[in-house]
Amino acid sequence: MRDLACDVAVIGAGTAGIAAHRAALSAGAKAVLIEQGPGGTTCARVGCMPSKLLITAAEAAEDARAAHRLGIHVGAVHVDGPAVLSRLRRLRDRFVGSVFEGLEQLPDESRLTGRAVFEGPDCLRIDDHTRLRFKAAVLATGSSPSVPEPLRDLGERVLTTDTVFDIEDLPASLAVLGAGPVGLELAQAMARLGVRTSVFDPGDSLGGLSDPDLKAAAREIFSQTFDLHLGAKVAHAAPDGDGARLGWSGEGGAGDGRFARVLAAAGRPPNVRGLGLERTGVSLDEKGSPSYDSRSLLCEGAPILIAGDANADRPVLHEASRQGRIAGRNAARLAAGEGLERPERWVALAMVFSQPQIAVIGGGFSPESGRIVGRADFCDQGRAQVMDRAQGGIRLYAEPDGRLTGAELIGPEVEHLGHLLAYAVQDGLDVRRFRDRPFYHPTLEEGLDTALSDLVDRLG
Amino acid sequence: MRDLACDVAVIGAGTAGIAAHRAALSAGAKAVLIEQGPGGTTCARVGCMPSKLLITAAEAAEDARAAHRLGIHVGAVHVDGPAVLSRLRRLRDRFVGSVFEGLEQLPDESRLTGRAVFEGPDCLRIDDHTRLRFKAAVLATGSSPSVPEPLRDLGERVLTTDTVFDIEDLPASLAVLGAGPVGLELAQAMARLGVRTSVFDPGDSLGGLSDPDLKAAAREIFSQTFDLHLGAKVAHAAPDGDGARLGWSGEGGAGDGRFARVLAAAGRPPNVRGLGLERTGVSLDEKGSPSYDSRSLLCEGAPILIAGDANADRPVLHEASRQGRIAGRNAARLAAGEGLERPERWVALAMVFSQPQIAVIGGGFSPESGRIVGRADFCDQGRAQVMDRAQGGIRLYAEPDGRLTGAELIGPEVEHLGHLLAYAVQDGLDVRRFRDRPFYHPTLEEGLDTALSDLVDRLG
Repeated sequence: MRDLACDVAVIGAGTAGIAAHRAALSAGAKAVLIEQGPGGTTCARVGCMPSKLLITAAEAAEDARAAHRLGIHVGAVHVDGPAVLSRLRRLRDRFVGSVFEGLEQLPDESRLTGRAVFEGPDCLRIDDHTRLRFKAAVLATGSSPSVPEPLRDLGERVLTTDTVFDIEDLPASLAVLGAGPVGLELAQAMARLGVRTSVFDPGDSLGGLSDPDLKAAAREIFSQTFDLHLGAKVAHAAPDGDGARLGWSGEGGAGDGRFARVLAAAGRPPNVRGLGLERTGVSLDEKGSPSYDSRSLLCEGAPILIAGDANADRPVLHEASRQGRIAGRNAARLAAGEGLERPERWVALAMVFSQPQIAVIGGGFSPESGRIVGRADFCDQGRAQVMDRAQGGIRLYAEPDGRLTGAELIGPEVEHLGHLLAYAVQDGLDVRRFRDRPFYHPTLEEGLDTALSDLVDRLG
Repeated sequence: MRDLACDVAVIGAGTAGIAAHRAALSAGAKAVLIEQGPGGTTCARVGCMPSKLLITAAEAAEDARAAHRLGIHVGAVHVDGPAVLSRLRRLRDRFVGSVFEGLEQLPDESRLTGRAVFEGPDCLRIDDHTRLRFKAAVLATGSSPSVPEPLRDLGERVLTTDTVFDIEDLPASLAVLGAGPVGLELAQAMARLGVRTSVFDPGDSLGGLSDPDLKAAAREIFSQTFDLHLGAKVAHAAPDGDGARLGWSGEGGAGDGRFARVLAAAGRPPNVRGLGLERTGVSLDEKGSPSYDSRSLLCEGAPILIAGDANADRPVLHEASRQGRIAGRNAARLAAGEGLERPERWVALAMVFSQPQIAVIGGGFSPESGRIVGRADFCDQGRAQVMDRAQGGIRLYAEPDGRLTGAELIGPEVEHLGHLLAYAVQDGLDVRRFRDRPFYHPTLEEGLDTALSDLVDRLG
């Protein structure tokens, strides 16, 4: 066991950890990055990138099937599952590889490998080989998929995002537990790739939507692609040959069925257990998660900052990356005895890359807020009709004084309108000023113009 | 011949004219709209909408052909030309129909039909049936496609945007004269629909690009889809059976060839001839176009305003619509003896809906400006790679103080980045502030983040 000392110890070499380490180094701190595997960021390895690769193939299959509506005839559409998955892994491995390349460029003395456990508020042990004293630490340990209790005896019949992208061929059928962003994206992609797919969720919402109208629209749209059971909880599961038999019940009805595979997509709890946090003096809640300040990212009770999925606040890459930078800079400041930065939070921005896509800006709908709601419908929107994608709608929320505060959208390619709206909300833009901007014709952005116009009328 | 009088006479019932008429009515003026056909706006009838409908079908054909790269196999792709064109006309007629519905809701006394000719600075004659005295007039007569001299003896072998969407089936081959936005969109769509297509343009640019790097990228990308002759002018044309034989020459080389049809896509001059403008006192240039103020839209020498394609300034729908509103309000003010509004101009925004798309914001590149240039490439951009559309690049232009002034882009779906950038330029946003915004992962907007980062580095 060797003894080392540093200014800033960063635990976890994912998106948040890498950003924190770089920021601490840039601030002049002696910073050490502790990699504890699996290598590669959640995003590149099991998250954003592989799911978007699966979706790209699924959309190609669906578009080919629908091309006849535009006068383009193709023969039978054949999904070559192994080829789809092989392209997915080839590009995924390239994205993961570029993460590794970045790490390999770091000087050896600023990297350690192994499982880090706190021995106290200023000391970590890495495996049995190193004791590392630090002035400040950044906890960037990420999250891991959870497997609900009833599925625990199903062995390899259960997939998670950690394993689903490594299957050799597509299953004949799939039960997806969880209708949030991850469950919805993968369920729709699998269904379009020819997998008989059922989705179960105890709630009444798809893809994180909260607006009542849009939730209803989403239920109608997606239930045409897969078998949808909202208000249904999977209570029983048992192996059945190569597959599994599930039983479910709830307000949405009861039933049972057999599936070749089951995908657990009901959440990714933060990795905060088994780290010795109880020896640091940090205040922990009943789940073992530290209390922390959402702007400085400092935990209560010790010189430890928490960034990225580990704090379970906004588990999306752009927030993990920014939180990493903030935590790294603040760790360097703590180590140097300086005061902490508390930058304004960005507007919350969440997206689902289903088709139609979903975007929620500023936390979405809240019936008690007294906010004014502006509406537009993609069903009669010019460009959406041209594209043969006229489905969904826009809801904009504004204060009575005209300031835009949030939005929810389901519709074609709303990832782009999501950015426009996020920036407008972040700037506190008045909806009347927003309207006095060019909306090119014929674009989906004109749907936003319609919703803004409705909102301005309602403001009176 | 009856005699009528009004406050505001609006000549032309296209996008600008309809907007002007509505704005003048809203301002309390007695306003008359003079429709002189063909009915329906340029946009709905022969412009934005039918071209985007053709492009949608062409992209479906191309995507089906490329789907095997994603593991999706389809049989032979067969383009059913009559079906493609029939869907196009069905939706086009619906868009045109909704323009007519809007007009039919106007009170009869505020509409006149016929060809309007100025008899003096306050008087119009409409056909031989009406003399209309006005206090102010709005000229919103639009534009018409020009047919270059060498093509004038080809009869029905020559198509323009006025006629190309009415053909019953796709031609076997097509020569497109003009590589601007319209020529490029239609040439690529036709080529993807199986038409052997050649494009001729005396210039060196495609789709209105001005940045040298992006012009070169565009030449390379699009010459893979159709036979491209830049620096080549069609000098001779003669009928050859059902088709036409063309001869061309110039810096780009000389040659000749036979084509089933020829599409004249080299411009739409404004409709300003034969209107009797010379009797109004308005200052006219050598082409017969009035001198006017680009903010108030008032012509020099008479109470006449000019809006939309008729002033040939920014022949795009969102400008025609806004100019119509400004001209209509100002016409009402003139009629009431009030001073004119001179609202700030919007940032210039031009787009080409080819694949990859093109967007030019703020007028594009100017080598003498001393502006700082930020660059990013779509070839190694994550989302573009996932989508199998990793082509093109971004150029951002900023003043040395950091203020964003313009941009040019060629790349996947840059219509959306175009909006983001147009709003940032219009707001005079500092590129350092622009960077401190969420860019969701994995999106094409992250390419913009990369270009902003490059620009910030160059600002020092």
